[in-house]
Amino acid sequence: MKTQFYTFIKELQNTITLKLEEVDGTATFQEDQWQREEGGGGFTRVIENGAVFEKGGVNISEVYGPLPVAMQSYFKVGDVDFYATGLSLVIHPVSPQVPTVHANFRYFEMYDKDGTVVDSWFGGGLDLTPYYLYQEDAVHFHQVCKTVCDRHEVADYAVFKKKCDEYFHNSHRGEARGIGGLFYDYCKTSEQFSMEDWLAFQMDMATHFLEAYVPIVEKRKSLSYTAAQRDWQEIRRGRYVEFNLVHDKGTLFGLKTNGRIESILMSLPAHVQWRYDHHPEADSPEEEMLEVLKNPKDWV
Amino acid sequence: MKTQFYTFIKELQNTITLKLEEVDGTATFQEDQWQREEGGGGFTRVIENGAVFEKGGVNISEVYGPLPVAMQSYFKVGDVDFYATGLSLVIHPVSPQVPTVHANFRYFEMYDKDGTVVDSWFGGGLDLTPYYLYQEDAVHFHQVCKTVCDRHEVADYAVFKKKCDEYFHNSHRGEARGIGGLFYDYCKTSEQFSMEDWLAFQMDMATHFLEAYVPIVEKRKSLSYTAAQRDWQEIRRGRYVEFNLVHDKGTLFGLKTNGRIESILMSLPAHVQWRYDHHPEADSPEEEMLEVLKNPKDWV
Repeated sequence: MKTQFYTFIKELQNTITLKLEEVDGTATFQEDQWQREEGGGGFTRVIENGAVFEKGGVNISEVYGPLPVAMQSYFKVGDVDFYATGLSLVIHPVSPQVPTVHANFRYFEMYDKDGTVVDSWFGGGLDLTPYYLYQEDAVHFHQVCKTVCDRHEVADYAVFKKKCDEYFHNSHRGEARGIGGLFYDYCKTSEQFSMEDWLAFQMDMATHFLEAYVPIVEKRKSLSYTAAQRDWQEIRRGRYVEFNLVHDKGTLFGLKTNGRIESILMSLPAHVQWRYDHHPEADSPEEEMLEVLKNPKDWV
Repeated sequence: MKTQFYTFIKELQNTITLKLEEVDGTATFQEDQWQREEGGGGFTRVIENGAVFEKGGVNISEVYGPLPVAMQSYFKVGDVDFYATGLSLVIHPVSPQVPTVHANFRYFEMYDKDGTVVDSWFGGGLDLTPYYLYQEDAVHFHQVCKTVCDRHEVADYAVFKKKCDEYFHNSHRGEARGIGGLFYDYCKTSEQFSMEDWLAFQMDMATHFLEAYVPIVEKRKSLSYTAAQRDWQEIRRGRYVEFNLVHDKGTLFGLKTNGRIESILMSLPAHVQWRYDHHPEADSPEEEMLEVLKNPKDWV
């Protein structure tokens, strides 16, 4: 299963980066290959200063070896071996009219010391962070997620949607990071479902990432915007940074378990602002956006 | 003691903000008074978009009540009451030639349920974060710290300097946040020293903050700089954000114990950049700065 999934995300990284380069029209992804001292490594692909995409990364990695001590206590296991592979992407567009997007599709295995698999699961999801609310974009993104879920008995859109709203939440601000999407984890064999069922869902969802995001980019990328709208985008990007550095488990894990810093922090936007006690004007599009972040909606 | 110290920092907030306004020449501090639901509150003073200071805050607070549960486990105590007061400041100048500065001077008390003080201590320090290394500025800042310490038997410059280097450290980058200063905590009564001894040191050090910082600002504020130097400053500010959001205990405490978010996060700079895998050019002033952050020096 791990070979099948790794082969899939390796191919998917090509598909996604080629498509995003085509959408951008000027910039290309630069690849860095890295190795992990304790076992494994990855391919980080970063795009910067494009016509459409200001900064983004589409990374895959495959890491294995003894489970780091910090993760033993997290998973409440002893001294076991692990294997983890996944594709992780964050794309920050230039224009505040185009949403930021994040997606992650991962697979995890744990072994006892004679090499027997003792646990394995899939996790992942995708979520959208617009700076201005186009209701039809939010509906489109969620509709793609729901359509894929509805094809798979293992996947419950309503549950994964709710988990996404709960996870990507800046509790210190009382705001969601964005308008959500899907979040799922510890998806494993049960009486009802096999790992093959989960693999089929995971691959279907990952394959449809581009369908969820690219039509929104195409529709919004040529819209004009003002310097004030760009400021608002950079202020909201500050909230994105706050989430990733204060709350995101993946980021903190990476930082505390000797991951490759530049591959982890490629998720941070290029230009960011913090202003003291900033509030959008009453009845402005910015306030409308904020209201939806404070009170997550059902889009489909 | 708590009244004496609070009266002192309330006056010091005036002294510091007046002096910084004079140095800036155009912008003034705006004050917000806030109240804490569980007891106490504070006065947050923020300066933005000045000629010299891009964003900064000089805050005092005095909070009390039952010790929040998250802090009970941190301090390894039960359900006790507490009182905490302090002055906290962070100043981010416009020019990359002028260093960012941070200082904090605080006093903490814990009581049992019949109101008896069971523990009390001082903590604090000050540290400088330049973007370009002017050795004489680093020496000046540390010399002021050392001179104050040398006047007080309780204060050991060498120990507090080392603690500062250890604390303000971005372990995930292997870099110090800046060129250090002093850091001390849990400064309390011992066989040798009384709380009055610590109070005298704390007040002396806080009083000399302006002497440590302002001459550096005056010397560097009119120097010219390029857009590339400004970029470097904004990239380094990204490291400042990383430290404050990932590692700083005070920030994380505030975020997790329902502190006033805008008073806590006033420490974040206004304009910040992240670039993928950024490295300064070989033998550049930027690389020289980075070398000192990777290998903290003794300045006096």
